[in-house]
Amino acid sequence: MASVACTAAAAQAQGVVARPGNALRSAAPLRVARAGRSAVVVAAGPKLDLHSNVFPKELVKFAETEEYIYRGGRDKYSKLPEAFKGIKQVGVIGWGSQAPAQAQNLRDSFAEAGMDTKVVIGLRPDSPSCEEARAVGFTEADGTLGEVFDVISKSDMVVLLISDAAQARLYPRILAAMKPGSTLGLSHGFLLGVMQNDGADFRKDINVVLVAPKGMGPSVRRLYEQGKEVNGAGINASFAVHQDATGTAADIAVGWAIGVGAPFAFCTTLESEYKSDIYGERCVILGGVHGVVESLFRRYTRQGMSDEEAFKQSVESITGPITRIISRDGMLGVYNQFSDADKKIFEQAYSASFAPAMDICYEIYEDVACGNEIKSVVNAVERFGRWPMGKIDQTHMWQVGQKVRAERKEDQIPINPFTAGVYIATMMATVQTLQEKGHPYSEICNESIIEAVDSLNPYMHARGVAFMVDNCSYTARLGSRKWAPRFDYILDQQAYVAVDAGKQADAETIQAFKSHPVHGALAECSRMRPSVDISVGVDGDNTGVGAGAARTEFRSVAATATA
Amino acid sequence: MASVACTAAAAQAQGVVARPGNALRSAAPLRVARAGRSAVVVAAGPKLDLHSNVFPKELVKFAETEEYIYRGGRDKYSKLPEAFKGIKQVGVIGWGSQAPAQAQNLRDSFAEAGMDTKVVIGLRPDSPSCEEARAVGFTEADGTLGEVFDVISKSDMVVLLISDAAQARLYPRILAAMKPGSTLGLSHGFLLGVMQNDGADFRKDINVVLVAPKGMGPSVRRLYEQGKEVNGAGINASFAVHQDATGTAADIAVGWAIGVGAPFAFCTTLESEYKSDIYGERCVILGGVHGVVESLFRRYTRQGMSDEEAFKQSVESITGPITRIISRDGMLGVYNQFSDADKKIFEQAYSASFAPAMDICYEIYEDVACGNEIKSVVNAVERFGRWPMGKIDQTHMWQVGQKVRAERKEDQIPINPFTAGVYIATMMATVQTLQEKGHPYSEICNESIIEAVDSLNPYMHARGVAFMVDNCSYTARLGSRKWAPRFDYILDQQAYVAVDAGKQADAETIQAFKSHPVHGALAECSRMRPSVDISVGVDGDNTGVGAGAARTEFRSVAATATA
Repeated sequence: MASVACTAAAAQAQGVVARPGNALRSAAPLRVARAGRSAVVVAAGPKLDLHSNVFPKELVKFAETEEYIYRGGRDKYSKLPEAFKGIKQVGVIGWGSQAPAQAQNLRDSFAEAGMDTKVVIGLRPDSPSCEEARAVGFTEADGTLGEVFDVISKSDMVVLLISDAAQARLYPRILAAMKPGSTLGLSHGFLLGVMQNDGADFRKDINVVLVAPKGMGPSVRRLYEQGKEVNGAGINASFAVHQDATGTAADIAVGWAIGVGAPFAFCTTLESEYKSDIYGERCVILGGVHGVVESLFRRYTRQGMSDEEAFKQSVESITGPITRIISRDGMLGVYNQFSDADKKIFEQAYSASFAPAMDICYEIYEDVACGNEIKSVVNAVERFGRWPMGKIDQTHMWQVGQKVRAERKEDQIPINPFTAGVYIATMMATVQTLQEKGHPYSEICNESIIEAVDSLNPYMHARGVAFMVDNCSYTARLGSRKWAPRFDYILDQQAYVAVDAGKQADAETIQAFKSHPVHGALAECSRMRPSVDISVGVDGDNTGVGAGAARTEFRSVAATATA
Repeated sequence: MASVACTAAAAQAQGVVARPGNALRSAAPLRVARAGRSAVVVAAGPKLDLHSNVFPKELVKFAETEEYIYRGGRDKYSKLPEAFKGIKQVGVIGWGSQAPAQAQNLRDSFAEAGMDTKVVIGLRPDSPSCEEARAVGFTEADGTLGEVFDVISKSDMVVLLISDAAQARLYPRILAAMKPGSTLGLSHGFLLGVMQNDGADFRKDINVVLVAPKGMGPSVRRLYEQGKEVNGAGINASFAVHQDATGTAADIAVGWAIGVGAPFAFCTTLESEYKSDIYGERCVILGGVHGVVESLFRRYTRQGMSDEEAFKQSVESITGPITRIISRDGMLGVYNQFSDADKKIFEQAYSASFAPAMDICYEIYEDVACGNEIKSVVNAVERFGRWPMGKIDQTHMWQVGQKVRAERKEDQIPINPFTAGVYIATMMATVQTLQEKGHPYSEICNESIIEAVDSLNPYMHARGVAFMVDNCSYTARLGSRKWAPRFDYILDQQAYVAVDAGKQADAETIQAFKSHPVHGALAECSRMRPSVDISVGVDGDNTGVGAGAARTEFRSVAATATA
């Protein structure tokens, strides 16, 4: 794909405001391709340099490229007062997937740092979420729970965590209600995509920053809690400075990332973030893995396996050992532990699956990049009143799963080489597409691999597919429902048909897999991995489940709600 | 949905040019809702009055509304010379699904009418389609086969039947090459959708008309050939006059419809046509029926049926007797022939399936109406070079199907009441959505029912799903691949789960089905049905198959091709 050298001016045209000596420094040469919104944002090899005066940055080598990152951890909390200087109140708006986690984590971190910055939840007074917020200590009585626009107008920083669709509808009122010089915090670039569709822009007298934890809210809270005993557990985040009105936007953004528990924070832009994020959750992170396991379960039962065995050889194999090995030793770790015979099976499955998975990944990326997916999500949410999102885990297969989990012996879950080949091909297709579209490796690794194995698959392992998918945002839940069936069908129609016709592994495809630079980048990311594994209760065990954490029941009528 | 009374001025704003005493007469009151492209085009109850000075129109009552139609038939061919006055050459551009059929039918009709108007095929000189065109008598030698732009510049009428994606890419050059005062003929409003996305408009000195046969090309040819012995066989078409530069556009459009063999031609607009057409083929016409039968086959085998029996009870049941009964006696005809016990099964399946099918139908409609589907198709075709469309009928289920067809006894195919309930619920959801979005009943009946039962299902009956889907346009083939899995998953996750949980039929849903006005409208359409059934050879029998007719092998690299 064509890319052109550009200067800070082009970065600014992308909505990134450079201020001398501050936030964005255009490391030479920042290469950005400019061919409309459907094209590459950041070409391979750039350095996005978001400079903070409070926190020290580090230069890290990911595969063939270098990136700046910020290191978090509880030992950095002492710098939070400086980072949040002048911010007396952080208004966290909404109570969806991210809000309960981020609000509680920030509150705990501020307390730990001895700050008097208040975290206040903003909700509609009649929202059913108010009860949940009170249950974890946000109350009207002590001024930490209030009405949305009242909280927004009184906050020095507004962390906007209402649903994407609600943001799309309410952003003109929200922006209008903010204090001059205050900071708008987003955890997703979705709103930028909406505003691009609308031809709208942010008002210029506020900061606009992003911190996007690389996991759903419940895991952000769960790992933070687990990490209280150790320094540095939590979910990595990417961050961006889209607009720096005060000259301190990068300090605030990095402080926010560290405050919610990110062991590491990576630089990105709103645009690069929303494209990779909306894309990734539709691919291997949620939709892809769901489609993969449905197609495999069906294949294995048709081949004569019992339902229980088929579930073990597909879902359990992925969410258990394969996920664990990738998390520790990468995708090659899975491949390397196979016998020669199993390596052959893996290679055959991988070779047959990679191109079909690429086909769907590319379609998803381009539908996200041109604005279609965002428009579809906004339209879909408007239909919730008539057709709420249905349950996805009441089918035969997932009923079998419940039984299998009940009798699970963790160390006896098989590592099926065919399953591994199909799954890892889908993961590599997710990686490869992001790479071809020019995303930085920190983003590629997180949106294709780390979020899957360290944050989301453990939820499917605990209670099945809906516990993973439906603890995510509406945008993710809709996207997973939309694209899982596509992965399923194309694997069935093309990959498995090829294998059954005796098509052998393709040496070039396997060589490309083995020598892909992502393995090196992932290894570097692994050094930044949370120091504990996420732990969430299986069916019947409520660890990490309940008010302000993961949910087992879900609402989908969000059209008019702000929470 | 809001709708406002409007005048011819609003119709003109929609791109329909009214000329006094000619093409469009705004029957009082023409009601058109105007709330951006995603809203209703024509509200229920309108009369679109496209007036021809050559052919007599008839007023027909469809359910609660009236529409004007034109009657075709071989006895009208004598008026073709008057309708095509001044048109010495019709250039048919492309050789995809529609072009071979329409070009041959027009040539035959002109000959029958004793006209010397030439039908000339325009193709790239290196197109592999040239050989097929020559095989049915279009040759360079007699001047009936030439280079695309050369043919365009010499034709008085250009029937543009290259792929939708090629139209999207080439329309500026094509429009520029046309003679002043000539007529651009489209068989699909897709190009208007593309031009709306681009903010472009047609040049004002040409006619722009549409004739959209309600069936894929091979069936347009096949029924025309079968109908040579009887007066009036062929495929019904809708037609539109988008721009009338010469004052004779309606004559040309109706003449074209009759010339390709339409027994009846219904009035529409380009916008209403492309929305209902792109939508319909994604719903029950192609994508919906594919998803339905995949989900049913899986369900039946899991319930213990043999593969062969499951194929009979799902696919064969639909493409055989259910299709035949709907074609003759409508959807209620299927219901009425069941025993009381089977009626109960039908009602339970219908009740459980209708709302989930509506959910997907609405999503499809709104994705089409807002321009997303058109943008996705254009993007997808650009990727064909790297990922050609794969085969969809090589999976286990369709291999079983081949065996079942080989041993078929037509009169022993079962009419499964559960299958009928799911299929007809999907059909009714397709109908209901179009009705709520304000399409006229002629369009609703054709795009939801008639095209399915009279044109497309017979192809699936003959040789399986790909023989149906992949004999259609790229837009249709892509859409079917995209949405079939969505119908499959939602039926599996919601409808079948509800049935298995013992959920009984919903009286209100069944009452709404039984009393729906579409049954009356369809009965009226049935009186306009072709007088013969389509007949196409099953595996191994080449009736209606081969050069210029249905294909069994398909290309998908259309990115740079004009044929």
